[in-house]
Amino acid sequence: MMKTPVGIIGFTGYAGQELLKLLSRHPHVSVSYLGSRRLKFDPKKAASTCELLFLALPQGEAMKLAPSMLKNPDLRIIDFSGDFRLKSASVFKQAYGLTHTAGSWLAKAVYGLPELNREEIPGSRLVANPGCYPTATLLALAPLAQNHLLVPGGVIVDAKSGVTGAGRSLKEEMLFCEVNENFRAYKVDKHQHVPEMEQELGRLSGRKVPMTFVPHLAPMNRGLYATVYATLGKRISEGALRALYEQHYKEEPFIRILPKGCWPQVKSVAGTNRCEIGIHWDPSGKKVVLLSAIDNLGKGASGQAVQNMNLLLALPETTAL
Amino acid sequence: MMKTPVGIIGFTGYAGQELLKLLSRHPHVSVSYLGSRRLKFDPKKAASTCELLFLALPQGEAMKLAPSMLKNPDLRIIDFSGDFRLKSASVFKQAYGLTHTAGSWLAKAVYGLPELNREEIPGSRLVANPGCYPTATLLALAPLAQNHLLVPGGVIVDAKSGVTGAGRSLKEEMLFCEVNENFRAYKVDKHQHVPEMEQELGRLSGRKVPMTFVPHLAPMNRGLYATVYATLGKRISEGALRALYEQHYKEEPFIRILPKGCWPQVKSVAGTNRCEIGIHWDPSGKKVVLLSAIDNLGKGASGQAVQNMNLLLALPETTAL
Amino acid sequence: MMKTPVGIIGFTGYAGQELLKLLSRHPHVSVSYLGSRRLKFDPKKAASTCELLFLALPQGEAMKLAPSMLKNPDLRIIDFSGDFRLKSASVFKQAYGLTHTAGSWLAKAVYGLPELNREEIPGSRLVANPGCYPTATLLALAPLAQNHLLVPGGVIVDAKSGVTGAGRSLKEEMLFCEVNENFRAYKVDKHQHVPEMEQELGRLSGRKVPMTFVPHLAPMNRGLYATVYATLGKRISEGALRALYEQHYKEEPFIRILPKGCWPQVKSVAGTNRCEIGIHWDPSGKKVVLLSAIDNLGKGASGQAVQNMNLLLALPETTAL
Amino acid sequence: MMKTPVGIIGFTGYAGQELLKLLSRHPHVSVSYLGSRRLKFDPKKAASTCELLFLALPQGEAMKLAPSMLKNPDLRIIDFSGDFRLKSASVFKQAYGLTHTAGSWLAKAVYGLPELNREEIPGSRLVANPGCYPTATLLALAPLAQNHLLVPGGVIVDAKSGVTGAGRSLKEEMLFCEVNENFRAYKVDKHQHVPEMEQELGRLSGRKVPMTFVPHLAPMNRGLYATVYATLGKRISEGALRALYEQHYKEEPFIRILPKGCWPQVKSVAGTNRCEIGIHWDPSGKKVVLLSAIDNLGKGASGQAVQNMNLLLALPETTAL
Repeated sequence: MMKTPVGIIGFTGYAGQELLKLLSRHPHVSVSYLGSRRLKFDPKKAASTCELLFLALPQGEAMKLAPSMLKNPDLRIIDFSGDFRLKSASVFKQAYGLTHTAGSWLAKAVYGLPELNREEIPGSRLVANPGCYPTATLLALAPLAQNHLLVPGGVIVDAKSGVTGAGRSLKEEMLFCEVNENFRAYKVDKHQHVPEMEQELGRLSGRKVPMTFVPHLAPMNRGLYATVYATLGKRISEGALRALYEQHYKEEPFIRILPKGCWPQVKSVAGTNRCEIGIHWDPSGKKVVLLSAIDNLGKGASGQAVQNMNLLLALPETTAL
Repeated sequence: MMKTPVGIIGFTGYAGQELLKLLSRHPHVSVSYLGSRRLKFDPKKAASTCELLFLALPQGEAMKLAPSMLKNPDLRIIDFSGDFRLKSASVFKQAYGLTHTAGSWLAKAVYGLPELNREEIPGSRLVANPGCYPTATLLALAPLAQNHLLVPGGVIVDAKSGVTGAGRSLKEEMLFCEVNENFRAYKVDKHQHVPEMEQELGRLSGRKVPMTFVPHLAPMNRGLYATVYATLGKRISEGALRALYEQHYKEEPFIRILPKGCWPQVKSVAGTNRCEIGIHWDPSGKKVVLLSAIDNLGKGASGQAVQNMNLLLALPETTAL
Repeated sequence: MMKTPVGIIGFTGYAGQELLKLLSRHPHVSVSYLGSRRLKFDPKKAASTCELLFLALPQGEAMKLAPSMLKNPDLRIIDFSGDFRLKSASVFKQAYGLTHTAGSWLAKAVYGLPELNREEIPGSRLVANPGCYPTATLLALAPLAQNHLLVPGGVIVDAKSGVTGAGRSLKEEMLFCEVNENFRAYKVDKHQHVPEMEQELGRLSGRKVPMTFVPHLAPMNRGLYATVYATLGKRISEGALRALYEQHYKEEPFIRILPKGCWPQVKSVAGTNRCEIGIHWDPSGKKVVLLSAIDNLGKGASGQAVQNMNLLLALPETTAL
Repeated sequence: MMKTPVGIIGFTGYAGQELLKLLSRHPHVSVSYLGSRRLKFDPKKAASTCELLFLALPQGEAMKLAPSMLKNPDLRIIDFSGDFRLKSASVFKQAYGLTHTAGSWLAKAVYGLPELNREEIPGSRLVANPGCYPTATLLALAPLAQNHLLVPGGVIVDAKSGVTGAGRSLKEEMLFCEVNENFRAYKVDKHQHVPEMEQELGRLSGRKVPMTFVPHLAPMNRGLYATVYATLGKRISEGALRALYEQHYKEEPFIRILPKGCWPQVKSVAGTNRCEIGIHWDPSGKKVVLLSAIDNLGKGASGQAVQNMNLLLALPETTAL
């Protein structure tokens, strides 16, 4: 079988390196182009050499590159940034403080969370790989959202991330001695991933579901843990709640609903594309705690990108994962 | 000035070791007795040698020892365990699965959180040093509770603890390789500290305030971080909320209310008896996020015990802290 | 191509888990038996189900199991313990404090360090997978040893290991808070791996080469770093020294000799079967420092076991590595 | 008793912060001046406000400041950098790549390792606080050096440092994810502390004692561990060796010689001004391994600076330590 030529622009960051490792184990693709900003990549060469390109660049770079690259009719792009995740240019501007320069692609880009969007991905030319916080949160909330159980203002997400989530940028607060033996919240209720989560929750729920979101930095390289507190619009029994989740994800190879009384841990999903979800039902029947763990570089970035690539290339979704 | 003879029973654990370090720097006490279960301590000798004893023993040990020790009329005890924190023996039994054997002392023991209870401590013979989770949580919520702003079911506490919080006991899940590069929730909504927090919140509020509590284990030795989500019973402006907190704690040497947009971090309170509190006000005026950080071995255990000792000995509360 | 049925006895330890992960990615074997002491394995069933068995058990267990298992004429064993690494039963007794109960297999077992012993492995029925310290040390010293450049008493190995090297056993000194933010030496000059290293160095050198060996525990899950100080028997130029190493390892897919002035790091070899070696030449021409890094669970245990398996099964040595 | 006014220039770095913490607990000094490069300090004001100044600045800054400050006849300086540790301006230039601009002070400055130099410190106006590697190494080797037991080329120092040792400077290699789960050597045999160690060893030995020195970075905030391999010039019995060390340090409050078979650990000295030394004697009688642990911010920097200050102020040497 011929291998599909693929490329990475931004291969030196943590997500790029993880992606390269996954692709090098993949039986049906060959990495034909590696570029990075430091090494001055050539977008034209990248676009003409590869059938599929991964963009793993800082915020705002992909929207400059993608439109001209995509004139190449056989090319498809999976973008790691937030540039194409939001449907609205004005929400984008609010979230990222940047004016969108490729607004016409916002509607055409597909939000690449296969468990929510599997049908739309294969035909897409531009897949917006989700953020790590949204991935863990949306997987935890999707069954409630799709069953219209969420109420506005009833969703609180307390999330904890490993340090690779922040990328390799040089900031004093990311020095070893500033993170080790430390724990702290940041961007309380104003993280740029909130609009992304609200957009997708809204789409699934059929109505707006604003949330409270507090991200924290934990002293570990990898892993993302979301503890989600949901107040429900109507009462549900514990059995029905569990059945809802098990049913919803029963065909999903990467989602594991844990048995009653078991809670996810980062260690179990580190280095994988899996998401583990634990469910705590409150006897009131109207409150639920969902605990969701992923590897921020796996299902939260590069693993998910490979899953999206497998869908684009009509390969079994679990190939090399 | 004569030094007061004090002793520690249980000095080999993490809290005991930290206490010993603090006492050795204290100008007005001398450590006259050190005992541990491993080294077969002598309770009679301890009680007769010291004017003040710290009990830093596993759950259920203090209630066996304290009553006979306290027959010694000049002795006072500061207990680190949960044995004397709850006012009700039946709630105690529910929380710890043990029948209380010194029930008559439950009413007489004083809950040793000086910022809430300063007046009662000096005259007490038995001070129940609070749990680490309750300390961080109650300090964050006290101003709201005392102003009757909390509503039942409207309090969610998402807490993260360093590993010394679990003590030195030998469990596979506490091995280095099981904790390092890991993060996980445990005892979701059934931690033994919940009744303690609900008791004190109820006392402050004048009514029951049941809460949702999810503790997590973070890969660090020390530190405790509570992110508290509160729905308020009536609307409050941002200015009024800040004023409430600043006013409430303005005389407190160990509590620091952070400026708007600043969030506590474990690093800032590690090795101290301080609690840092950050406040996030939601524009709805009815939701608040409080972020509270302490050192679980400092304000969450041994620092607080020394603060209580200073009160018992009529010394300036900050001595040696 | 038919997959070879293989099994692991002792799959729940750190090395067993890593091995299972590697085997599950291997295209030419299927894991047909998983046993552990906790789950009461059946040695007969294991031996009859599999063509190749990995024993990842504590010291002293393999020598009890292997002889009867190997009566099964088609079975081959790769043992992770020290039971079959030493050629002499009396040296074994000194190193491990145990009387060897399968002494007749000591001569027949092959020391499974492919870079030193590649020819002997394929025909062997019992491969003794090397220790992690010996792997890093012998790879660093082999070129000097084979060229008779080492002198007795002139070898010092200062080694640092991650914590998985000690296995999952429940010891207070392995608790998170005892290891994190700590660093310490242990078993100074009396580690059980010393006889193993001296045996192999002696074999390569053609004479006894006693060494000084100090192992240390570093606060990380994985990784092993050996800093080796060698006094040479005769003067060598820097160019000749580098040429010696580059020549020696030029065909080796898993060994990387770093350029002048570059030093190995654990991060570069973590999760791989590679060994990185850095060379520092002293202007005297008679002293060398060799720095060698491996992943103690990779080239130091499970990766190397898969490499040995590939040799036994006549597969390309790098398959799945 | 009047408190002596002291100041810190460079109080925001890790050593400066630790120093500030120690001074704030000191009963006989008051911190009257705090300056940092970021906050534009005023050297004149500092020098006139304080009787003693600590300079905790990057290499090369102290030699620019000290000479004019010291014109103030009542001022004394304790410098944390390498600017005044070496006696020779040319050796300084080789070590640091800088031309010394205050060469006349090199002879007058005193090397502030009290255990070696106690008599000279009190009368000095400029104390050069030793480097962290030299402190651990010299304390381990001093008894051998002073007894003329060391031979040239017979000293190997394999050292491991926590990350605060590198200061707070912003380098990619110091980011959390680059250090955590990593271990690596750096500046192999060309660290700037080598001349300092050789100078002092030479002084103690009465002859040149060149050494091999390999520093490593370990994934922890604090701590420094030196494993020192010494070949002796003449045979010594184990008893004589131990007696030598115990005798040498028997009056030293901060040095602890560990019993046979016990090895130092970073955890035991973290947060203290202590140095723990373990001794391994080789049956040949001519080889010794010395293991030495300090806190790089304690005895390796700020603790030692306070010890030096206590000597300068004629206070008990252990005050506040």
